[in-house]
Amino acid sequence: MNKIMRHGQVGRSAPRLEAREKATGRAEYVHNLRLPGMLYGKIFRSTIPHGRIRSIDVSAAAAHPGVYRVITAADVAKVVPNPYYGPAFHDQPILAIDKVHHVGEPVAVVLATDPHVAEEAAALIVAQYDELPAVYDEVEAMTSKAVVHDVLKPAGTFPDLKHLQGKTDTNVALDFHLRRGDVAKAFAEADHVFEHTFRTKAVLHLPLEPFVSVAETTGSGLTIHTASQSPSFVRIEIARLLGWPENRVRVKVPYLGGGFGAKLYIKLEALVAALALIVNRPVKIALTMEEQFFTLTKHASTFRIKSAVSKDGKITGRECEVWWNGGAYADIGPRITQKSGFTAPGPYDIDNVTIDSYSLYTNLTPAGALRGFGIPQLVWAYESHADMIARALKLDPLAFRRKNILREGNAQATGTIMRDAAIEAVLEQVSARMDWEKPFARSSGSVKRGRGIAIGFKASISPTTSVAIVNVAADGSATLYCSTVDMGQGSDTANAQIVAEVLSIEAEAVRIVHPDTDVTPYDMATLGSRSLYHMGNAVRLAAQDAKAKLADLAREVGVPEGSNIPIAELFVKKYKMQAGNIIGTASYIPSYVPPEAETGQTPNATPFWMVGGAGAEVEVDTETGHVRVTRLVNVGDVGTLINPRIVATQLSGAAVMQYGFTMQEQIETDGGQITNASFADYKIPSILDIPPMESEAVDAEQHDGPFGAKGVGESGTFAVSPAIANAIDDAVGVRISELPITPEAVYRAIRARNGDPLEDA
Amino acid sequence: MNKIMRHGQVGRSAPRLEAREKATGRAEYVHNLRLPGMLYGKIFRSTIPHGRIRSIDVSAAAAHPGVYRVITAADVAKVVPNPYYGPAFHDQPILAIDKVHHVGEPVAVVLATDPHVAEEAAALIVAQYDELPAVYDEVEAMTSKAVVHDVLKPAGTFPDLKHLQGKTDTNVALDFHLRRGDVAKAFAEADHVFEHTFRTKAVLHLPLEPFVSVAETTGSGLTIHTASQSPSFVRIEIARLLGWPENRVRVKVPYLGGGFGAKLYIKLEALVAALALIVNRPVKIALTMEEQFFTLTKHASTFRIKSAVSKDGKITGRECEVWWNGGAYADIGPRITQKSGFTAPGPYDIDNVTIDSYSLYTNLTPAGALRGFGIPQLVWAYESHADMIARALKLDPLAFRRKNILREGNAQATGTIMRDAAIEAVLEQVSARMDWEKPFARSSGSVKRGRGIAIGFKASISPTTSVAIVNVAADGSATLYCSTVDMGQGSDTANAQIVAEVLSIEAEAVRIVHPDTDVTPYDMATLGSRSLYHMGNAVRLAAQDAKAKLADLAREVGVPEGSNIPIAELFVKKYKMQAGNIIGTASYIPSYVPPEAETGQTPNATPFWMVGGAGAEVEVDTETGHVRVTRLVNVGDVGTLINPRIVATQLSGAAVMQYGFTMQEQIETDGGQITNASFADYKIPSILDIPPMESEAVDAEQHDGPFGAKGVGESGTFAVSPAIANAIDDAVGVRISELPITPEAVYRAIRARNGDPLEDA
Repeated sequence: MNKIMRHGQVGRSAPRLEAREKATGRAEYVHNLRLPGMLYGKIFRSTIPHGRIRSIDVSAAAAHPGVYRVITAADVAKVVPNPYYGPAFHDQPILAIDKVHHVGEPVAVVLATDPHVAEEAAALIVAQYDELPAVYDEVEAMTSKAVVHDVLKPAGTFPDLKHLQGKTDTNVALDFHLRRGDVAKAFAEADHVFEHTFRTKAVLHLPLEPFVSVAETTGSGLTIHTASQSPSFVRIEIARLLGWPENRVRVKVPYLGGGFGAKLYIKLEALVAALALIVNRPVKIALTMEEQFFTLTKHASTFRIKSAVSKDGKITGRECEVWWNGGAYADIGPRITQKSGFTAPGPYDIDNVTIDSYSLYTNLTPAGALRGFGIPQLVWAYESHADMIARALKLDPLAFRRKNILREGNAQATGTIMRDAAIEAVLEQVSARMDWEKPFARSSGSVKRGRGIAIGFKASISPTTSVAIVNVAADGSATLYCSTVDMGQGSDTANAQIVAEVLSIEAEAVRIVHPDTDVTPYDMATLGSRSLYHMGNAVRLAAQDAKAKLADLAREVGVPEGSNIPIAELFVKKYKMQAGNIIGTASYIPSYVPPEAETGQTPNATPFWMVGGAGAEVEVDTETGHVRVTRLVNVGDVGTLINPRIVATQLSGAAVMQYGFTMQEQIETDGGQITNASFADYKIPSILDIPPMESEAVDAEQHDGPFGAKGVGESGTFAVSPAIANAIDDAVGVRISELPITPEAVYRAIRARNGDPLEDA
Repeated sequence: MNKIMRHGQVGRSAPRLEAREKATGRAEYVHNLRLPGMLYGKIFRSTIPHGRIRSIDVSAAAAHPGVYRVITAADVAKVVPNPYYGPAFHDQPILAIDKVHHVGEPVAVVLATDPHVAEEAAALIVAQYDELPAVYDEVEAMTSKAVVHDVLKPAGTFPDLKHLQGKTDTNVALDFHLRRGDVAKAFAEADHVFEHTFRTKAVLHLPLEPFVSVAETTGSGLTIHTASQSPSFVRIEIARLLGWPENRVRVKVPYLGGGFGAKLYIKLEALVAALALIVNRPVKIALTMEEQFFTLTKHASTFRIKSAVSKDGKITGRECEVWWNGGAYADIGPRITQKSGFTAPGPYDIDNVTIDSYSLYTNLTPAGALRGFGIPQLVWAYESHADMIARALKLDPLAFRRKNILREGNAQATGTIMRDAAIEAVLEQVSARMDWEKPFARSSGSVKRGRGIAIGFKASISPTTSVAIVNVAADGSATLYCSTVDMGQGSDTANAQIVAEVLSIEAEAVRIVHPDTDVTPYDMATLGSRSLYHMGNAVRLAAQDAKAKLADLAREVGVPEGSNIPIAELFVKKYKMQAGNIIGTASYIPSYVPPEAETGQTPNATPFWMVGGAGAEVEVDTETGHVRVTRLVNVGDVGTLINPRIVATQLSGAAVMQYGFTMQEQIETDGGQITNASFADYKIPSILDIPPMESEAVDAEQHDGPFGAKGVGESGTFAVSPAIANAIDDAVGVRISELPITPEAVYRAIRARNGDPLEDA
């Protein structure tokens, strides 16, 4: 740990800086923003999953009283000649051009001063299509004759996408391959071979603040007010689309009402920017809850996992084949395919590994990052698989894991040597909290009790950069300029504590300037639990830079070293009054070696590892299939704790979210049409659904993290699903291989196990 | 000159960055700001010049339909226990407490959602006073039994005010004294002694955007949107009033519709801040043109000047006694008294000097800084006096000045050695442009022609600090964060040119972040032509800091020194994509030694000297007293020119303003009541009034200015008034000793000279 200047600010459960603002309704959100002359846009969307646009008749909409204008791709082309965007592929048009690729794709926009008028008029637009064959399943997409995109257009950002440039007749948007050791030999020599396939359905972020963006033209360019997790990316991507220098595009982000990965890259921003340029008036688009279903989902996935195991339970080889259902546009899917690909074999020390991970285009809503960046899907598979092996070999699940886990100094599948990944500590703490080695009462009549554990881990995205500015005022109070988006995770408070710790002031004396690309410097994005490590390090270094300059000032004004003179007095000595600032700056980027193309190996697959373990106790009603989770233990390795209370709520919040994905949530589709696009039909956990939970962090430390800390936003999601599935198997001896675990699925499995399978309706 | 990296950005007449915004109506002004739930405040003002408040009856106003609330000092005291503010004295209450000190002083405020309702209701307030004796004349105020303030309360900022702490029975708010050589001996030994007294009347800034401020409470404190020249001061002073840390007060300043010194320190800001805290809603106060007359004026002044002169025209001694009419509150008047005191003897090399300069409280509208900070009043006196001496000694006015001016290396009255003050060059350029040494046709019947010259100089305020941040984006475009307020003087453009010059990019690729104390670092204020020198240096150093970091980056990514690789490529080499920022920072404060208390001497009275000379040709109608200025030449020393076109317009703009003060403008009062408080009665120059003008800068260089530059905002005002008065004397042989030079004054003087004085009406 960097033992610099501990003053009790780090490690303190400081109340969140924004608590008062949020409680009093003063916190700024884009939804509240109204600008003079602002128009509201309502999107007219595709009603078919795949087809060529034959015609779009906007005449009735344009003639509707109160409508300002109706915009289609032809209008957009006048201000953005090449209107395709995306972080990995430039595949997504601002409005559909020639073709539509999924139900709900934006085709036209009605602009009106009244949003209700715009909505009425949008219903009057008529589009005609020549339908094309569609593909929805990620495995089918590998070989389907239905091809989503005519030509692939990688963005040029990632070297591992270059070989896809200009490809036709394929739905594969990235194929990641890793080879380590000799898997064929391992299987040939194995005592046991196990092979299973697991699936997850597409689910949704559903932040309570849906997508919303406002754009306005200014004297110098454009300002975009947007609920985004990636203001710097939005700025650079909009500038690229317009052929402008970065600094003519200003992106401002206030608080977010949740993000969870949905609000990354470009969502509505390019559309409102184009609209504002076309009509030269401010334009706002705010989606409904329903429209979120047509914007971004979490990847459905299929994972075939095959393990070679010795008779004493040591895993000697593993084959992983993963298909990711990316939907109609790549978004960040290819990165998920690669990054999660790194850890597909799980946190186990396995000498012989192959990984084949595929990002697939399908004719569904695009899929992107969602809290965990693919990891919960993988852990679902490899930790269900682990218990199935243990059960088959009659090994205790904890003992089986103890035998196989990666320990400090082991080489992970990529060849990266494990460091500061508290896999063992997390596993032991989960088992201790679960009283795993004590007797467990299993049955109470038709309701059977069971318990399960699971553990997962994650590599962080790399290489990425964060930059911070710390401005110390003449009275010693400080202001932090940083582009990390506080979307509820408490980053403002944590960053303030880091500044405060370095400067020996109170966290409450640190003010945070929210992302504004004219003001706050570059940050890659707020995603993948990267911020506390990357931005936290930049913030720490910027504060140290300010501190060094304060020391210079002290020397200059003749204050002896080590004297505890208040900062304010240094300024007065220098300026003879309350005047001036000291400004510290820093940027942080971890070292990085890209994976070798042939083997997928790299000595630093990640700047830090995240580890999350879970234990679940369940009661399964064998007469209904209903599962009640009676206890859910979550343990994470988050390094040292900057703010223990926020860590605990991050872990439990993540667990609640994953609990919904485990037990309740799925996007239901029929021929590409979403059939449950509402909160009435798509059920997220209510307060009554949430099981009794315990969330905690192990005592750990990330050697190069700020004060030993690292990210926590996702760790609580990793192991929840398989822990519950393992507990169900423990209770009633059935194995659920597809999420979500509905009562129907459990009941069907019990009936099937009893040799009395239920017929399909 | 700092000959670093000239790339043609400095010295180029770049079009103003804000031109498009202003021409298209998109430029932001506080007047346009409306916030949800915002209330409008209308001020109820004192109708008497001096008195104790017996009662304020707000019942009718409070009952007026649509009124939200009426606020008096009693309400203010609940949120600001000690509500007295001011840069030099804490003498000014947010709303009048116990006493009123001038007509128009704010006594109460009506708040309503409709500003017209607030105005109607304000007229219903009834205040009763016990009147007190009042004093209006600055010389009378020295000895008057009418004392404006019961006790003096210096702010503690300036050491030379400390001796006034707690003083009673005096109207003197600062007495500055300078002693150099032996004046008594000089007078005793002089061939000639001349003594004259000159006066100026109070005039007004009258920016076309009157004072306007908005305050809103936020989760963390207060945000004040204000048309201010001194955002950093407003932040610190409001924080002081509230007992808060600086960073809980956010001050945002967009463009200003003119300032000229009016919008400095606290004007409406403390009032709107208190109101917002009282009602917990946003509050806006926008003054009318009329209300500007009750807010701030330019000091009326009386200057007794006495010179010892040898028979060949060398000035051997000078006594200066100046009284400044500060009005009811000190504002920055004491600083004007001191700073202008430094140069009261004029730009002349005089061995024996005494200066006594007094800041006086009177029962008039407070007086503050106005373009020139007291200098035009002084030059009016010493340059009229110079011509009177020359005329008496039958010397050519140019020859008399040539004999006496300060030259490089001479010691000025304060003892400061003259450096980079192009007094001689300015004088010679004025005379050359005026063809001074060629014959001049004097007469055409009853209309007499004459010509005159004058020259003045100014010390800049010191010590003051400026801080700047230069942020270079990954595509090489740059953003400058600085708290200099662009109020029409072109500072945005000049600063962009400095950044661009250092970074070898186009000025148009530099974006300016306008003052926002959460974002842009400290700057003392935009005043006294200090910005281009102080902030310009900070900006130059910050850009150089960024440049040095770019050079580090180039080394880090292996780019050989001297290679002309674009900035964008350095970032891509480092980050593998368009990402990151390079941030340069700097602060600038010139060295300073405070004047010695006894003698007023200091080795660096100013970081730089400003010099302005003027020549005028006039036609005087001897039958009406009407004066037509047929030619007005203005020459300034502004160091090197960052933007020649802006320099020329600054010089001519200043000359137009001073022309109005010379020929047309004065605040007329009767028993403390202003009788011409409107544009209808108080006439500023219209386009038809402006004489033919030539404005230019001499070839000069400020050795430690940014690229050799220094300020220009005020220089064009210095010498206009005496040049015209001297021309009138040249034409008709009468001497006008009081500004403004009205036709009536000239006609009366002609009649008096002819032995036929006009009787007073």
